[in-house]
Amino acid sequence: MAGSSEGKKSNAKANIGGKKKEVKKETGLGISNKKDENFGEWYSEVVVSGEMIEYYDISGCYILRPWTMSIWEIMQTFFDAAIKKMKIKNCYFPLFVSPGVLEREKDHIEGFAPEVAWVTKSGKSELEVPIAIRPTSETVMYPYYSKWIRGHRDLPLKLNQWCNVVRWEFSNPTPFIRSREFLWQEGHTAFATKAEADTEVLEILELYRRIYEEFLAIPVIKGKKSELEKFAGGHYTTSVEAFIPTTGRGVQGATSHCLGQNFAKMFEINFENEKGEKAMVWQNSWAYSTRTIGVMVMVHGDDKGLVLPPKVASVQVIVIPVPYKDADTQGIFDACAATVNTLSEAGFRVEADFRDNYSPGWKYSHWEMKGVPLRIEIGPKDLANSQVRVVRRDNSAKIDISMANLVEQVEELLANVQQSLFDVAKQKRDACIQIVKTWDEFVEALGQKKMILAPWCDEEEVEKDVKARTKGEMGAAKSLCSPFDQPELPEGTICFASGKPARKWTYWGRSY
Amino acid sequence: MAGSSEGKKSNAKANIGGKKKEVKKETGLGISNKKDENFGEWYSEVVVSGEMIEYYDISGCYILRPWTMSIWEIMQTFFDAAIKKMKIKNCYFPLFVSPGVLEREKDHIEGFAPEVAWVTKSGKSELEVPIAIRPTSETVMYPYYSKWIRGHRDLPLKLNQWCNVVRWEFSNPTPFIRSREFLWQEGHTAFATKAEADTEVLEILELYRRIYEEFLAIPVIKGKKSELEKFAGGHYTTSVEAFIPTTGRGVQGATSHCLGQNFAKMFEINFENEKGEKAMVWQNSWAYSTRTIGVMVMVHGDDKGLVLPPKVASVQVIVIPVPYKDADTQGIFDACAATVNTLSEAGFRVEADFRDNYSPGWKYSHWEMKGVPLRIEIGPKDLANSQVRVVRRDNSAKIDISMANLVEQVEELLANVQQSLFDVAKQKRDACIQIVKTWDEFVEALGQKKMILAPWCDEEEVEKDVKARTKGEMGAAKSLCSPFDQPELPEGTICFASGKPARKWTYWGRSY
Repeated sequence: MAGSSEGKKSNAKANIGGKKKEVKKETGLGISNKKDENFGEWYSEVVVSGEMIEYYDISGCYILRPWTMSIWEIMQTFFDAAIKKMKIKNCYFPLFVSPGVLEREKDHIEGFAPEVAWVTKSGKSELEVPIAIRPTSETVMYPYYSKWIRGHRDLPLKLNQWCNVVRWEFSNPTPFIRSREFLWQEGHTAFATKAEADTEVLEILELYRRIYEEFLAIPVIKGKKSELEKFAGGHYTTSVEAFIPTTGRGVQGATSHCLGQNFAKMFEINFENEKGEKAMVWQNSWAYSTRTIGVMVMVHGDDKGLVLPPKVASVQVIVIPVPYKDADTQGIFDACAATVNTLSEAGFRVEADFRDNYSPGWKYSHWEMKGVPLRIEIGPKDLANSQVRVVRRDNSAKIDISMANLVEQVEELLANVQQSLFDVAKQKRDACIQIVKTWDEFVEALGQKKMILAPWCDEEEVEKDVKARTKGEMGAAKSLCSPFDQPELPEGTICFASGKPARKWTYWGRSY
Repeated sequence: MAGSSEGKKSNAKANIGGKKKEVKKETGLGISNKKDENFGEWYSEVVVSGEMIEYYDISGCYILRPWTMSIWEIMQTFFDAAIKKMKIKNCYFPLFVSPGVLEREKDHIEGFAPEVAWVTKSGKSELEVPIAIRPTSETVMYPYYSKWIRGHRDLPLKLNQWCNVVRWEFSNPTPFIRSREFLWQEGHTAFATKAEADTEVLEILELYRRIYEEFLAIPVIKGKKSELEKFAGGHYTTSVEAFIPTTGRGVQGATSHCLGQNFAKMFEINFENEKGEKAMVWQNSWAYSTRTIGVMVMVHGDDKGLVLPPKVASVQVIVIPVPYKDADTQGIFDACAATVNTLSEAGFRVEADFRDNYSPGWKYSHWEMKGVPLRIEIGPKDLANSQVRVVRRDNSAKIDISMANLVEQVEELLANVQQSLFDVAKQKRDACIQIVKTWDEFVEALGQKKMILAPWCDEEEVEKDVKARTKGEMGAAKSLCSPFDQPELPEGTICFASGKPARKWTYWGRSY
């Protein structure tokens, strides 16, 4: 039965007829922090009370509960099928890396070294050589790419793996967003030509955009990272960038890197081309992680808890019987079961909550907290009128629909909720975008938690300077990306930070 | 194009017309070790040449290549759907365990301690407390079961995770069969009553039987492990046991444990039952791993390489054009493409090998080595007769089938290969089963690499004694399982090893 299988800590008793506020208090339901007032506490509370996360006894590690995993699996099913169509194949490389290999690419190891966890013992014995746990798998995989790739017929080599990685960070662990272990997919591909690599970078980025926009209902901006922010050891990095209006922080949603020939040089990944000449491969790597789910919670969640987009919700519709003393209780329960059957056969993910130890009101709050997109209530009046009452989680709208049109209307409503979540999120995000042209405007916009679009000279030293000048309690500002969709840049436009000629429009802000 | 995407190390050149033996030598194809002569070397060669495994630079760790992962994913799709029907939900718990928790259950930690890998450093800093990497997740999960389970309505709690685990073993690493990191699923469930737990143990065991028998075409015996061989800290262990006739070794295929209330006691997993009394939960845990794939290679592989059962083969049918100088090459290629289309649309996993730098003979050997169940050859004569030639990987039988009946016949042939692989494996396995009643017969049968069924008193000391008395170069004998399907045990039957009254029939042998 819905809600009974994962277990819940609650002393709640049925409390029909109590005042709503009091019921909530007594049952321990409801979110005590407000999203706009204490965002950090609100977020922790929502992911725990929504049964997505349980905090773990090792700091920075989190338990991903079924409510999380079903979202992850839905995205995984989409992405895995999409890359298989692109002839990318799944593999699994070891968790462990030997130090010599890890340190082969200098810039790369500089980027990751401080966060690498080391195994030095097994049982009671010291290992002869410490062994690293992968923070990412470039150096794990590429020695074998060098072995497997000999001639142009061995290219392209396109592999992906679904796995866990470990980055032992010390700054502010946050569930999903910044954790010491996380789940992701990492794709690693090698091509004969730069053109093929460039094309794939963007094909993958488009899949990432679709995960955010079509599945998670979160608007993202596609663009290129600055030299300072690109992947350690890579050639260039593209990303989808999301934004959290409540905190005014950008968040890197997923990245698709062209590694160029840097790793190929270090790992000697050469091939004989069609002319019989020796050449180096061009490589990409790309990844998205469970961070996606954290961004979803931050963008859509509200003071009642999680708000799940229908496409990723493991329960899209929750059906709740609303019996009254003198009413035909059995008839109501039967109607609920019939509703579940009808919707389930039509392909929706639907459950009923028949538990007899909770009041309908308690159940409303419970499933609101868990973010289920639609609630169907069936009471005596509904039964009499052959209708059900549908309540939308996103905007609390109540709609009575006839049992005869159940499937069509639920389908339409779910599509509507999905679109509406995106539209509202986009509207809020867009309202945060501020175009600035001068340093003063920049500082003011930053103080107003904006996602700042500014003309920039694209010089690394200038970005370092911006970081230094904005350092403070809230964290420094940095470039988020230079959007592919560039507004016009009139000749003579100058950089907001350096006064030098601007070369492109770039988004700036604080970020996660 | 088939075969081009994963990359291959080979200096092979097309060599049409060379003698077959010589072509093989020249191209480096073919397995140089014989299964019956050098089993260990044969196995290593087959998993590498079949492109399932690449050896890794850390001993005991292996790279699982796409040819492996597709088999793993097919089994995963089956098993994941089956347990979801049983209302078991997926979750993900951290890779890391703190030492205090790991050591909570005494018998359990004694079983795993020598193999635990420890993280003691991150970046250049020593951790305050060393952190263990999960060898299995009982101790990772159960503190949270204690938190989540309060009342009888929170039960059953049924979770599963797909993940990697690490056991830093030092004895004989073998790809798939004994590796320091491996992939598995681990299910962990808690019930109010022993009866529910007992029932689930067997339901899961039946799924494991189906993975082996229906997917991997490997006969297994269901039974109960002895006290000495059961899971460390558990109540009782059931397993499916396979057997490798070539080496005369049993192999534990997968295990479904009833943990009883041992862990519940240590981790204080209590609940209030329907009468309002405090009670302890009954728990199960169960797992199967990538070891399954190693057993498949060992059982079905032959001197030409891998032999894949159609149900798990990522390519079920490989289509190879066999052009001749004066023949209508384009017509042959078109017929191959049409064959692929027809079979692919009918739902088969099929590819064509159009590479122009390899001879048909080379391709035959290549796809035989990779174990593809059916090969379709299309030459000028086939084209003229609107037929294709099908060659079975399992028994080399050649069948000409009309293009008109392609789909039906291929379907029938694949089903036939699947069944035939099982039947042959069962016949070979059954031929190894030897019933013994005395110690002398036991020793003789052990020397003949048998899977020995013997009446046993079921005493732990006696099993220890059997181990001690059979110690030697080949490894000691141990009990494999007491089969659920027990032959009659006439009163007065005595134990083969102790001379005490026998209590059950039990399988014995050397094992992996």
